[in-house]
Amino acid sequence: MKTRDRILLTALEAFSARGVAGVSTNQIADEMEISPGNLHYHFNSKAELIKALYLCFNQDILSYTRTSERPVRTPQELWLLLALSFQLLAKYRFVFRDASYVLNRYPELRRPFATLLRQTRESSQRFCRGLVASGILDADSDTQEALAQGLHLQITQWVGYADLLQLGRVTHQDEQDPFALVEGINQVLHRLHPYLRPEVREAFTKPVPAEVIKEAI
Amino acid sequence: MKTRDRILLTALEAFSARGVAGVSTNQIADEMEISPGNLHYHFNSKAELIKALYLCFNQDILSYTRTSERPVRTPQELWLLLALSFQLLAKYRFVFRDASYVLNRYPELRRPFATLLRQTRESSQRFCRGLVASGILDADSDTQEALAQGLHLQITQWVGYADLLQLGRVTHQDEQDPFALVEGINQVLHRLHPYLRPEVREAFTKPVPAEVIKEAI
Repeated sequence: MKTRDRILLTALEAFSARGVAGVSTNQIADEMEISPGNLHYHFNSKAELIKALYLCFNQDILSYTRTSERPVRTPQELWLLLALSFQLLAKYRFVFRDASYVLNRYPELRRPFATLLRQTRESSQRFCRGLVASGILDADSDTQEALAQGLHLQITQWVGYADLLQLGRVTHQDEQDPFALVEGINQVLHRLHPYLRPEVREAFTKPVPAEVIKEAI
Repeated sequence: MKTRDRILLTALEAFSARGVAGVSTNQIADEMEISPGNLHYHFNSKAELIKALYLCFNQDILSYTRTSERPVRTPQELWLLLALSFQLLAKYRFVFRDASYVLNRYPELRRPFATLLRQTRESSQRFCRGLVASGILDADSDTQEALAQGLHLQITQWVGYADLLQLGRVTHQDEQDPFALVEGINQVLHRLHPYLRPEVREAFTKPVPAEVIKEAI
C-alpha cells in the first residue's frame, strides 16, 4: 500500500477510536513509524488530511448510490441495502460524530462538509423514491420528503448515538458493537413499516434470517 | 446573580456557540472580567464545570418530567410539550453535540453522562406511555418501546443535527434558528402519526395555529 493511503487508513482508525480532537498528525506518524516530515510531505496540515478523508467518503457514497439504484425486490435486499448504508457511516463515523468540533476548528472544511451532507440527503431521498417506485412503500411526495429527512437524521446520527449509548454503559468503546447496527436497521424498518403496501407488508415484517444478518455485518 | 451561577451561565453560552473544545476556563474568566483564580475557587477544573452543568440539566429534566406527567388532551398541549423538550435540549445543546469529545477527554464524566442518558430515555418512554394512556396513541408495548427509542434519538440528536445543517449551508451558526425547532417537532409528529387513534387523527393532524407556535418558541 502506498504511504499516502496508509496515512489515510491510520488516521481514519485513530479518529474513529479517539476522536479527531484526540489525535495529532505527529501521533499518526508515530503509529506508522514514519517521520512527521514524511507525513507532512503528503498532507501539510490536519485539515488537509481530514479533507482527503471527506473525499474518500464522497467516493464511497457515489459507489453506494450506484448499488442502491438497483430496485429492491425482497426484504433481504432491503435489509442488505440498509446494512451497507450503516456500514458506510460506521466506517467514516468521525465525520458526523466529530463534525461540531471539526467545523468550529477548521472553518475551511465547512464547504466540503456541506457537499457530504447534500450527498447523504440526496441518497436518503433516492432511497425513499426507489421504495415507492418498487411498489414497496405507499407514500405521497410530502410523506416521502418527511421520511427521507427522518431517515437522513437516523442514519447519519445513529453511529454517534450508538457510541454514546456504549459510553453511557461506561464500557470501553473501541470495539464496534454489531448489535448497534442491527438495532439501527430495525429502527429504520420500524419507521417505514406504517407505509408498507398491504400486499408486501407480511413479507417485509418477518424477522430477517440470521444468515442474512451474519453475511451483512 | 451569584458568581458561581454567572460562571455556569457564561460557560453554557460559550460552549453552545463555540463548542466545549474551543473554550478554556481562562476565556470564561476573561469574558466575565473576573480573575482565573476566582473562577478556580468555584470550579477547580473544566471537568468540574461541565459536571456542574450536567447537574443543572438533570434538575431541568426532573422539572420537565413533572410537567410532562399531566395528561395531554389537545394537539396544542402535545405541541407545547414537544416544544419544551426540544428547548431543553437546545439550552444544553453542548451536552449531546460535544459528547464524543468530552467523554474521550474527561473519562470521569462518563458516569454522570450515563445518568443524563438514562433520564432522557426514561422521559421518552414516559412520554409514549402517557400518549397511550391518554387515548391518543394506539401502540402495543413493543411499538411503544420502538417509538420511545426512535424519539430519544430524534430529540437528543436533533439540535446537533440542525446545527450541522446550518453549518452545511455555510452560514454562521451563533443564532439559534427557530425554524429548526418547528421542523424537529414536525418530524416527531410525523413519526407518531401512523399510530394516532382514528378518533383523534383528524384533530391531531391539523397544522398547529401560528399563535401557539409563537408562544412556544
